[in-house]
Amino acid sequence: MERVPVLKIGDILLVSIQIDMEDQVALQLQEDLADRIVTTGCHGVIIDISALDIVDSFVGRTLATIASVSRVLDAETVVVGMRPAVAITLVELGLSLPGIRTALNVELGIEMLALSRPHLDVEFDDDEDEADSAAVLAP
Amino acid sequence: MERVPVLKIGDILLVSIQIDMEDQVALQLQEDLADRIVTTGCHGVIIDISALDIVDSFVGRTLATIASVSRVLDAETVVVGMRPAVAITLVELGLSLPGIRTALNVELGIEMLALSRPHLDVEFDDDEDEADSAAVLAP
Repeated sequence: MERVPVLKIGDILLVSIQIDMEDQVALQLQEDLADRIVTTGCHGVIIDISALDIVDSFVGRTLATIASVSRVLDAETVVVGMRPAVAITLVELGLSLPGIRTALNVELGIEMLALSRPHLDVEFDDDEDEADSAAVLAP
Repeated sequence: MERVPVLKIGDILLVSIQIDMEDQVALQLQEDLADRIVTTGCHGVIIDISALDIVDSFVGRTLATIASVSRVLDAETVVVGMRPAVAITLVELGLSLPGIRTALNVELGIEMLALSRPHLDVEFDDDEDEADSAAVLAP
């Protein structure tokens, strides 16, 4: 069975969804994420969906469930990288992803988690003029 | 066509490979990564292959090409998350991934990039005893 990997980066768990979210894959991801939140003590979850052409009601519900489970385990979830066409289709379908926070990309997602969790002490210097940018993740 | 997303986190580009690396996907990834290195000025590339059950000679060559292209563009590449079974099979097949640096996971990959690129000023506190760990990425 295919499995979506969960990557730990500092105090954040990063998930990049690229494969079709069938029932088993979605359930496995929920389980893996919950496990990793508990074993690592991470307080932030970022789910990147930039590879998805379509977000249907099942995927929407899966994301909402993941966000709720994470919240219960004291972690915040941000969905990032939604394509414009996906956003338009979602709203046309009447799916507005209630209870899910979104950001344009991973860096803005990290920033959003930092703002809502000041104790994470995540500073983020997103100066596009410079070749280098800075992210500071600290406990 | 399926596409592997390239995520920018601080001075690092992160790629998580989860789909089959067919010719077109591999070429597209090489192109996307080279483009992103040039547009973002990032100096590190981390390729996570923890989702791959099999790394054949084609994938091995693709990884080597990506590492070479990145090096020419002044970025270092680290392949992370290789499964034990994949490592065993690779060596049995006589593929030892020459010219490719590896680390066990994303956090150790970030640390490795920091050590080889002191000007990245990436500090990484990988204290597993604490629930929180810290990553500092700065230019």
